[in-house]
Amino acid sequence: RPMTAFADIQKIAYEGPDSKNPMAFRHYDPDAKIEGKTMRDHLRFSVAYWHTFRGTGADPFGAPTMQRPWEAAADTVDNAQKRVHVAFEFMEKLGVPFYCFHDRDVAPEGSTLAESNRNLDAVVELLKQEQKRTGIRLLWGTANLFSNPRYMHGAATSANADAFAYAAAQVKKAIEVTKELGGENYVFWGGREGYQTLLNTDMKRELDHLARFMHMAIEHAQSIGFKGTFLFEPKPKEPTKHQYDFDAAACINFLRANGLEDYVKLNIETNHATLAGHTMQHELDYAGGQGFLGSIDANTGDLLLGWDTDQFPTDIYLTTWCMYTIMKYGGIAPGGINFDAKVRRESFEPSDLFHAHIGGMDAFARGLKIAAAIRGEGELKRLLTHRYRSWDSGIGAEIEAGKMDFAKLEKYMLDKGDADANESGRQEMLENLVNRYL
Amino acid sequence: RPMTAFADIQKIAYEGPDSKNPMAFRHYDPDAKIEGKTMRDHLRFSVAYWHTFRGTGADPFGAPTMQRPWEAAADTVDNAQKRVHVAFEFMEKLGVPFYCFHDRDVAPEGSTLAESNRNLDAVVELLKQEQKRTGIRLLWGTANLFSNPRYMHGAATSANADAFAYAAAQVKKAIEVTKELGGENYVFWGGREGYQTLLNTDMKRELDHLARFMHMAIEHAQSIGFKGTFLFEPKPKEPTKHQYDFDAAACINFLRANGLEDYVKLNIETNHATLAGHTMQHELDYAGGQGFLGSIDANTGDLLLGWDTDQFPTDIYLTTWCMYTIMKYGGIAPGGINFDAKVRRESFEPSDLFHAHIGGMDAFARGLKIAAAIRGEGELKRLLTHRYRSWDSGIGAEIEAGKMDFAKLEKYMLDKGDADANESGRQEMLENLVNRYL
Amino acid sequence: RPMTAFADIQKIAYEGPDSKNPMAFRHYDPDAKIEGKTMRDHLRFSVAYWHTFRGTGADPFGAPTMQRPWEAAADTVDNAQKRVHVAFEFMEKLGVPFYCFHDRDVAPEGSTLAESNRNLDAVVELLKQEQKRTGIRLLWGTANLFSNPRYMHGAATSANADAFAYAAAQVKKAIEVTKELGGENYVFWGGREGYQTLLNTDMKRELDHLARFMHMAIEHAQSIGFKGTFLFEPKPKEPTKHQYDFDAAACINFLRANGLEDYVKLNIETNHATLAGHTMQHELDYAGGQGFLGSIDANTGDLLLGWDTDQFPTDIYLTTWCMYTIMKYGGIAPGGINFDAKVRRESFEPSDLFHAHIGGMDAFARGLKIAAAIRGEGELKRLLTHRYRSWDSGIGAEIEAGKMDFAKLEKYMLDKGDADANESGRQEMLENLVNRYL
Amino acid sequence: RPMTAFADIQKIAYEGPDSKNPMAFRHYDPDAKIEGKTMRDHLRFSVAYWHTFRGTGADPFGAPTMQRPWEAAADTVDNAQKRVHVAFEFMEKLGVPFYCFHDRDVAPEGSTLAESNRNLDAVVELLKQEQKRTGIRLLWGTANLFSNPRYMHGAATSANADAFAYAAAQVKKAIEVTKELGGENYVFWGGREGYQTLLNTDMKRELDHLARFMHMAIEHAQSIGFKGTFLFEPKPKEPTKHQYDFDAAACINFLRANGLEDYVKLNIETNHATLAGHTMQHELDYAGGQGFLGSIDANTGDLLLGWDTDQFPTDIYLTTWCMYTIMKYGGIAPGGINFDAKVRRESFEPSDLFHAHIGGMDAFARGLKIAAAIRGEGELKRLLTHRYRSWDSGIGAEIEAGKMDFAKLEKYMLDKGDADANESGRQEMLENLVNRYL
Repeated sequence: RPMTAFADIQKIAYEGPDSKNPMAFRHYDPDAKIEGKTMRDHLRFSVAYWHTFRGTGADPFGAPTMQRPWEAAADTVDNAQKRVHVAFEFMEKLGVPFYCFHDRDVAPEGSTLAESNRNLDAVVELLKQEQKRTGIRLLWGTANLFSNPRYMHGAATSANADAFAYAAAQVKKAIEVTKELGGENYVFWGGREGYQTLLNTDMKRELDHLARFMHMAIEHAQSIGFKGTFLFEPKPKEPTKHQYDFDAAACINFLRANGLEDYVKLNIETNHATLAGHTMQHELDYAGGQGFLGSIDANTGDLLLGWDTDQFPTDIYLTTWCMYTIMKYGGIAPGGINFDAKVRRESFEPSDLFHAHIGGMDAFARGLKIAAAIRGEGELKRLLTHRYRSWDSGIGAEIEAGKMDFAKLEKYMLDKGDADANESGRQEMLENLVNRYL
Repeated sequence: RPMTAFADIQKIAYEGPDSKNPMAFRHYDPDAKIEGKTMRDHLRFSVAYWHTFRGTGADPFGAPTMQRPWEAAADTVDNAQKRVHVAFEFMEKLGVPFYCFHDRDVAPEGSTLAESNRNLDAVVELLKQEQKRTGIRLLWGTANLFSNPRYMHGAATSANADAFAYAAAQVKKAIEVTKELGGENYVFWGGREGYQTLLNTDMKRELDHLARFMHMAIEHAQSIGFKGTFLFEPKPKEPTKHQYDFDAAACINFLRANGLEDYVKLNIETNHATLAGHTMQHELDYAGGQGFLGSIDANTGDLLLGWDTDQFPTDIYLTTWCMYTIMKYGGIAPGGINFDAKVRRESFEPSDLFHAHIGGMDAFARGLKIAAAIRGEGELKRLLTHRYRSWDSGIGAEIEAGKMDFAKLEKYMLDKGDADANESGRQEMLENLVNRYL
Repeated sequence: RPMTAFADIQKIAYEGPDSKNPMAFRHYDPDAKIEGKTMRDHLRFSVAYWHTFRGTGADPFGAPTMQRPWEAAADTVDNAQKRVHVAFEFMEKLGVPFYCFHDRDVAPEGSTLAESNRNLDAVVELLKQEQKRTGIRLLWGTANLFSNPRYMHGAATSANADAFAYAAAQVKKAIEVTKELGGENYVFWGGREGYQTLLNTDMKRELDHLARFMHMAIEHAQSIGFKGTFLFEPKPKEPTKHQYDFDAAACINFLRANGLEDYVKLNIETNHATLAGHTMQHELDYAGGQGFLGSIDANTGDLLLGWDTDQFPTDIYLTTWCMYTIMKYGGIAPGGINFDAKVRRESFEPSDLFHAHIGGMDAFARGLKIAAAIRGEGELKRLLTHRYRSWDSGIGAEIEAGKMDFAKLEKYMLDKGDADANESGRQEMLENLVNRYL
Repeated sequence: RPMTAFADIQKIAYEGPDSKNPMAFRHYDPDAKIEGKTMRDHLRFSVAYWHTFRGTGADPFGAPTMQRPWEAAADTVDNAQKRVHVAFEFMEKLGVPFYCFHDRDVAPEGSTLAESNRNLDAVVELLKQEQKRTGIRLLWGTANLFSNPRYMHGAATSANADAFAYAAAQVKKAIEVTKELGGENYVFWGGREGYQTLLNTDMKRELDHLARFMHMAIEHAQSIGFKGTFLFEPKPKEPTKHQYDFDAAACINFLRANGLEDYVKLNIETNHATLAGHTMQHELDYAGGQGFLGSIDANTGDLLLGWDTDQFPTDIYLTTWCMYTIMKYGGIAPGGINFDAKVRRESFEPSDLFHAHIGGMDAFARGLKIAAAIRGEGELKRLLTHRYRSWDSGIGAEIEAGKMDFAKLEKYMLDKGDADANESGRQEMLENLVNRYL
């Protein structure tokens, strides 16, 4: 199997911060160690099959633009298999340890479910070979329950019970395939699990169906011995007006309301976080604090735009806070940093796929180094600890220990007259401090 | 006690839809019955003491504007008591059955907590007399835990443990006062329970403190025999960058995570819903479907503005869907429809207070009539039932009954080949249908 | 030519407000007169060829959904001609007097420009016959300068001069075709005239090119005797991150900066207005007050979503203020009310096209009736006139007459000490007043 | 006059990038030269009197928080004069060359206009002395036409003609005072020049009044020999629902529509830009390209919040693009970089004022260094020039030279068949390139 799709591009090497070579890493040095762990293991980068190998550049106002000379006109299994070789060539040259896919990304849908399954099997066999050959692994698998018109009203939450049934069959197969490929996680993203208008929607009934669906998925996974983590992915809107998996809070609330909290964590995406009105750091810290941090979909949106632009992340502040928060919760494994990001429609040449991933990986590697520097120096944490010191002894400690009630606290305060003075929150000083590490 | 504050204004009467009298109701006819219940009991209108009697018209760019001739220059108990008479004159003339307040709305804060409590007692005594005289009742009480600089970093979630203690003492008293006045609910709105920057914030620790605080409140209420409902009020942002009570989902998740779900429901506000990216109808239906619909703060924001404008609600579509959803869940009692709304800064004359409330009450009364017409004709519900009919028998019913698993569903679908065809969601037709009732 | 595409649907008739027939008008009675002019002439409704006859239901997350049994698989001239018959059957049954199109909506693009032009001619010939047969007219024509990848970087503002040249050739033909069909206006919508990132953009040079392009278009129109109005259409973003025609102000500024203000007016769209942070009424009034109100693209967005949803307008407040503002400026002719709106992806059956347009037309007809009632009673205008009365005499009149300068005004105010007292802006009372007409 | 307000703080010195001293500059080295000009002259930093010396920390939900021990309880001329000493001590220690103020920031409003003017004169006398003593200069002056309830309906655009007259008198004096102090510019920010609702607004009449007002201001300036630049400041909303000076485009359109384009430039603020849906870089480049770039109000908003947070700018990307664009247009003088920014309400200690300004100045100094590096290496510009090369010869050059019309371009393209192929826009590569300089 000759490497032909990217003939002019060599394996991307680490050349250090001073390199001006756009086809080299300036920060991502996979074997370099940070806090005793390699960058590779901290970052667990993954390529998203759908954007990188199936993105066409079409948008609601225009036709496909992407130059992908390896693609044939017809969407056949044969073409899908050729694409697998291209994908692994790309990933090898890039040096990422993981990839992710939806069932319909890797193999064409057939005219029946049985045919679709056969198509999938045919490609999975090759994926398995390529994984073995290259050592690249599957971070997570998932099923596409939103592209086919069958799912126009949702999948598990469709008004059409048959759509639920079809989705169940499809997810069953996708979990099995994920297991077959050694996938470490399985993701639920509710592409159209939501509504366009409440006028035609029974929200409660739909949410009950979604819960039923997830329970069935977990039961099936247990029955076949799939040990990967299930991940639920928040997104507030688009394509539907309101997606039930709006944000981390909505997802966790759903899990708790339906007895799923012990089986499912979250896959958190930057652009979805901001569309919901949160920073990525907030969503990570919120999920992490409650034990639901599973994996991340790394990308960025444009905060002045109201749709999911899925751009590659290059803002160093963003990547710093992602890594800082991930390290706070002990790392992201068995999840990873999956580039759920697409090259711009105008970046249509194959080399742009390299530019985009190199930039994202370098931005995260740099974020990792900065986060480690902040942690290493310890100043930020010392200031935080100092700020909450009134909770570490005296009345604060007693409250935390459960020894206080309203009557005792009233007495304490009536005696005291007023609370101890506050101290400055020092936001500006802290922002300056952070800039010191950049 | 002569009625003097609004000498030119008589009791607002119902004059019917053809009236051109701006100081009359055209739709709110309190004793008229809808679905066997009076409008008064459906709507349970309440006046918000803070906006209506304490609003000054100041904004971040300008000084107070409100003409309130009854207000003295000094913020004394005596002045506060005079204000009580004005408030009850206003409410009597308006004909609302309820009002709501924060502790610091009704009585001035003293130089010590003990003095503040005495001030409050002095005014509460008069409120009680006026309630008795007029029959107007307290829908809910609450404590202001955000105006005093003591609470700059939050109250229950402050970095300063003394702020928590002070808040506890204040809420203890506020619950007692609410009980004393026969209040039917008690509200938590986390004015500054959130953060301005994660750089100086330990979110998990703060959320744990908030949970501890609510448990103490519930325990205290039980210990004194307060039977009212506790209500948690979502708001996504403002004054803090991120409020922990972001939206209904975040609030319910917090309650569930901390074992509070059996003790607290939600007080849902329109402008807070839309700032969080949701319609009011969504928040009501989401909370209602999970059993957390408690009460509503009726107002409206401007969807093109990013702050809480707290305008009086006059959009008939909005009020229709509020009432439709409330009726779907069996009514709002013991909650109510509290006008958490303020006259514009430029509507500074006392008569504007009447215009504003009359408009809001009429808009809700009209929404109630339209909602009842939609329910009465039944067409919308029939269409909804029809849409989900695949779940009422066959495979859908079996899924709902828990008789299906992934293996069975796969077999069902492999045999069938593909799902039954979808039907149009009919959004446009449904929107047209709704316009028929307006 | 038998009418076959919508066999089950008869010509939509006016049945009056009490009709429950979803396939009838309840408000649009084309020959009924309002202020001495028929509804037909007030409203000048137009169907948008692109959405209604070329919309597929595809979105960024899914495949086409629309059931359009008359469409063949191949995009041929023959198919395009069959579609013309369907379109005119639809428009006849709906009873709209106008339609609008882009060149590429009505005829397929060929492999060369020459072939594209021949294709267009072949379809235009049939459009002309159908116009003659039915009396339906062309409100405006335009060219699609955004779908073909040739225009990925813009058309007149492309970094590629050849894209400009191609666009020029295409617009030349589109203007000629518009003239041939008696089109009353010609629209410029800058589909990709903007940028994705300033990193690769010379904004000034691009804007200069755009101005050059418009001048050439005007010169060409004059050279061939096209008398229609040129219309520039604001849109702030999507598909590009920043569109140069951001809003009415940006468009008018561009026209003025480039000596185009005497030749071009605006085509204003609701969803574009709100994406730019304005109400539709604002954009209409802003353009109208400066003499740039040309035509409107009637639709609505969802204010909680950040993309162009192009929904059919059914909100009566929206249509009331559109019509009120249009009437304030003497009507919309030679522009019209073009439904630049698409049925939801889930409303995929042909009958939904009727529901959608009927709803939009009825909503505008009702808005027209309400606006006329507000104007007829005159109360709103009287209050407005009263509010500004200080400008009609005394110091105000002298300022308006140009008789004052800063020195005189300082003297006036030093003598007076302070300004006369303000009066309430009465926003709430006015909102209540408006509800009286609904 | 002893320096007492900030006794513990010495003059802030440049200590270089490795300094960990929070009270030192790490990047701002005023005498260091970049492209042959000192940092001081590139950056022309200014302190905003209103935020830094009059900000109280009050917000719509809470009372003042700021610790300002030098402030007396009463707002007297004497207190105002004492504050002048504090302000100059602060500015000297900080080392900024400029400051800005509104008339009412520096001196208390009196009970009559005459008294207000006397108050102002008394303080201006001292400002003049302090300017002379320290060498600190006035970047611009302005008048506060929004805080007093007199201006609730606007100033020049008020429905009350007397408000216009009062504003005229006030601006007359403010211009005179600005001249007296050697101010280099005079700013118009339309605090309430806009509307809360179109229901009570005659927009056209109001805009005409605003134009009249500006003409009078210019005429008065000419009559007294004030040579400074007039600056109009865009802001889309807040405090009014719609401000007439929405963004750069709206402001420039207004100037052009009213014959003011030769007399007035723009003062562009980051947080106002983003509230209007634009990046700061867009607004600077848009204004610069049309010759309207006057000065900047440096701050930042939170893009997830919908109000003007006026935070100090610390994002290096933001400051880099500000400086890059300013340098592209030849520098900002006679404008400057004015920190229209306030410390957070929780950063209430006097030292926070230093942290905040040091951080902003350092962020801009660093942005300047990065921008100079990008310019120095020239790669970004080379790529841009290369991208537009089709416009430098051949058909592109002929179009730019005005030698082409639609007929010639059609012939060119019919002959050619299709446009030359596009090239990738390379957005990701360019973003990576930028990160190389950080």
